Amino acid sequence: MTEARLIIAASARDADLFYATRFLAPDPFPFIQVGTERIIMASDLELGRAKKQAAVERVLPLRVYEERAKARVAQPTLLDAVEEALRERGIGGLVVPGSFPAEYLDKLRARGFELLVKEGIFFEERLVKSDAEVGWIAETLRVAEEAMAIAIQAIREAEIRKDALYRADVPLTSETVRRLIHHALLDHDCMAEHTIVAGGEQGSDPHHEGSGPLPAHRPIVIDIFPRSSRTQYFGDITRTVVKGRSSPRVRQMFEAVLQAQERAVTLIRDGAEGAAIHQEVTTLFDGLGFPTGETSGRMQGFFHGTGHGLGLEIHEPPRIGTRGARLQSGNVVTVEPGLYYPQEGGVRIEDVVVVTASGCHTLTKFPKILEA
Amino acid sequence: MTEARLIIAASARDADLFYATRFLAPDPFPFIQVGTERIIMASDLELGRAKKQAAVERVLPLRVYEERAKARVAQPTLLDAVEEALRERGIGGLVVPGSFPAEYLDKLRARGFELLVKEGIFFEERLVKSDAEVGWIAETLRVAEEAMAIAIQAIREAEIRKDALYRADVPLTSETVRRLIHHALLDHDCMAEHTIVAGGEQGSDPHHEGSGPLPAHRPIVIDIFPRSSRTQYFGDITRTVVKGRSSPRVRQMFEAVLQAQERAVTLIRDGAEGAAIHQEVTTLFDGLGFPTGETSGRMQGFFHGTGHGLGLEIHEPPRIGTRGARLQSGNVVTVEPGLYYPQEGGVRIEDVVVVTASGCHTLTKFPKILEA
Repeated sequence: MTEARLIIAASARDADLFYATRFLAPDPFPFIQVGTERIIMASDLELGRAKKQAAVERVLPLRVYEERAKARVAQPTLLDAVEEALRERGIGGLVVPGSFPAEYLDKLRARGFELLVKEGIFFEERLVKSDAEVGWIAETLRVAEEAMAIAIQAIREAEIRKDALYRADVPLTSETVRRLIHHALLDHDCMAEHTIVAGGEQGSDPHHEGSGPLPAHRPIVIDIFPRSSRTQYFGDITRTVVKGRSSPRVRQMFEAVLQAQERAVTLIRDGAEGAAIHQEVTTLFDGLGFPTGETSGRMQGFFHGTGHGLGLEIHEPPRIGTRGARLQSGNVVTVEPGLYYPQEGGVRIEDVVVVTASGCHTLTKFPKILEA
Repeated sequence: MTEARLIIAASARDADLFYATRFLAPDPFPFIQVGTERIIMASDLELGRAKKQAAVERVLPLRVYEERAKARVAQPTLLDAVEEALRERGIGGLVVPGSFPAEYLDKLRARGFELLVKEGIFFEERLVKSDAEVGWIAETLRVAEEAMAIAIQAIREAEIRKDALYRADVPLTSETVRRLIHHALLDHDCMAEHTIVAGGEQGSDPHHEGSGPLPAHRPIVIDIFPRSSRTQYFGDITRTVVKGRSSPRVRQMFEAVLQAQERAVTLIRDGAEGAAIHQEVTTLFDGLGFPTGETSGRMQGFFHGTGHGLGLEIHEPPRIGTRGARLQSGNVVTVEPGLYYPQEGGVRIEDVVVVTASGCHTLTKFPKILEA
């Protein structure tokens, strides 16, 4: 029995499929890999573009296989066409990704195919970045840094009135700064969603995107993670700034986060365990007097991962967290410890590094200065 | 045996989950519905925000259920925590969406749960839009129209030199116009990907996004489909313009497409069959001397659907195409016939309508004028 890999997904939302085909399509299409032959099936709408752009050995017209399926069913579906293509090649066994749609899984099994669901990432080689991929990530990161510079400049140039930031006589808001960031990204064909510009207490919720007037004298967390529309690779950077004078406690938090980041960076190398690195960071925070835990129904301290893989996905393996994985040379990961207390706000600093045999090298170049 | 609905997905990429919870999260989280009680499970990272923002009856801390699962497994996964929550409620039967990850499907079955995969859209009520939802779609559409106006203005103001468009002494490119569009969208907190600005032959491939200098005297297809970062609802509009003088054939194509769109709009009403409407459009094009078929390995004529549902997804049911569905009052659908011939280029015009008992009303207000 011939075996094959099968994905049915929209490559615009499926990093494995884009990785395998380098063909970006907004609607789901089938991908079949038999040995080293990569095949995609394309609708009439995508056929021309697929033939030109897809880095695969063969593009099959879905229509032709739908026509053939009419011998069996009156109104063939996408899956009927896939079945035709599989049978034509004598394929009976399929390996599919963990994200493979349950609907197709059940139906293919009912039709006699043997399906094995591969857990975790489908193409593991995707986690070890080539020089070109590292270059694309660095390129997006440069754009993110440019946007960060513009955001911090707006905060720096703001006026302080009654503990709030003003620009041209109107309050400077999270929304305004976020918009400046997004325009700057667009100028370089990068797009971002869920960009965080969160000041004061909002910043103490790590995923709060921030809204309303930005405060003076309190930390503002800025987290920018754009994707390049050209290469599809992500960049990711976080900085925390205070306009005005930060409290001594916030300065201590900032120093602790810097120290934690440095510690993590010194531990990152080929073979290191993500979970162990994360544990070191947590222990370091504890030792510096920044405990983690639930207080009056809210998590405080350090309660997210230390880092995550970065590439065609914003969050991909390997994770540096409680469920961390072993790092290997060529992984690109973020290093982003943070501290969050409702009274003080949040402080997070995030860089991107490439794992090497002897350690790692940092792709991020942007300075880390608390008071804007 | 108690039954429940289960989704495990990232609501930022799963319209059903966002619809059910109105909680936007970039990473997968579990959603359980038992009767009318909607429950989500949130990581420490999302717990605070979920409690504040999610329109559900209950938010369970994942951590607590992971802790409980440690009685069974040393390193509990997300699925172990889900299992704890299900057993706590005596849930043995689950209905999951067609997109449910194959990995979880197999594992939950292996643990003794009965899983039924629901095909098609998970919450069918999502296809019948409330007045508020129609309002949100219209709002995004207004923004898309504003961006369209800016794009067409740039083309109108371009200079023609040797059959190419120039602006301030440099060629006016697809990329430049796309960037103008994206900046205009951003000013209203809308984002778009895969925006099409495709001139000449590029436009004859319906999904070609367009690149390089824009031609004079040839059709330029502009297709803008932004999503509002505020409401998450999409708008969708396509116009086709010529800067300079269009060929008589292109003008005929334009008139035929207009006529086809009008025909489709007159047929749309509660109870109408999408496939029948699509067939009418195809027949009309044939009758007007615009045949569809493959010529020297390339599809020509009209070879995509007449329209698709629009809402929290850019493409959702009901489709008006070869596999069309029955329309019902409250559906919001696009009506976008087009003609594509390599020699002439592409012509597509797309409006958005709301289906009513007696017909439909058009949300799109932007004029349809071929020569910019």
